Amino acid sequence: MRKIVLMRLATAAFVCSFSLWARPDDTASFPKEFRKWAHVKSVLVGPQSAAYATEGGIHHIYANEKALEGYDTGRFPDGSVLVYDLLQTKEIEGNTIEGPTRRVDVMVKESERYRTTGGWEFMSFPEGHPAGAKLTAERKAACFACHSQRKDHDFVFSEFRK
Amino acid sequence: MRKIVLMRLATAAFVCSFSLWARPDDTASFPKEFRKWAHVKSVLVGPQSAAYATEGGIHHIYANEKALEGYDTGRFPDGSVLVYDLLQTKEIEGNTIEGPTRRVDVMVKESERYRTTGGWEFMSFPEGHPAGAKLTAERKAACFACHSQRKDHDFVFSEFRK
Repeated sequence: MRKIVLMRLATAAFVCSFSLWARPDDTASFPKEFRKWAHVKSVLVGPQSAAYATEGGIHHIYANEKALEGYDTGRFPDGSVLVYDLLQTKEIEGNTIEGPTRRVDVMVKESERYRTTGGWEFMSFPEGHPAGAKLTAERKAACFACHSQRKDHDFVFSEFRK
Repeated sequence: MRKIVLMRLATAAFVCSFSLWARPDDTASFPKEFRKWAHVKSVLVGPQSAAYATEGGIHHIYANEKALEGYDTGRFPDGSVLVYDLLQTKEIEGNTIEGPTRRVDVMVKESERYRTTGGWEFMSFPEGHPAGAKLTAERKAACFACHSQRKDHDFVFSEFRK
């Protein structure tokens, strides 16, 4: 099960992150405080992984307080925000350490506003720049299609590591 | 510099974690809520690392709100708590995922009470069991001796990843 979820997550991120960014004047809201939110889990995607080209490095998932309720109940309330923070890595004498940000993907729950995509808005910020762009409607639809595999968990792949 | 800090951190954890646990009736206080605190940084210690025997796996460092002030100012106020959460890892098709807890080390700042160790209490919980024991005075002294290399940063090795 874990393996399936992991591969689905990698696939979802791959689909979301394909390089069709929207115009720079899109006003996507970057969750600036996410580095102080709760840390859900981490995965290191290495060169042998099928997802390496787009997801290679270490990713951490963060959740705001509302999203933590969702991990408890399986239903994420409006205002939930989830962040997928993908970093480059560097190996030093057998230790893999974190490097610069590759990309920050964000999901925001607003049931009515985003009802055509399960209540979720999907955003992506190349290199984690707050001025980065939202995804096009086409790419968001692709994100949603993949996340629909976890409709039973309100379209969220990750589980909170206890 | 980063490399030196990394190796010192690994050494410090090694020194602290050596297997001389105190008696089970010691009343060390386990910070039960740490998984919802801010995530400072992570390192994966692989088989090629000199620290692998004791530190192998992935470790995440967490900080409570007071400790976050310390990362900003370089002086950690009383009440600061830092957690080193060491997990086993498992590799699945090139992806390294988190496994069970190996050990949870904790530092608590109370300047007066622990003035002989730079104001810090050092604790360690094998497998992350809240009922785990504090370290003996001898082992704490060893932790402190190693952490003294970072006296300039209030005896804390890690830096908050932005």
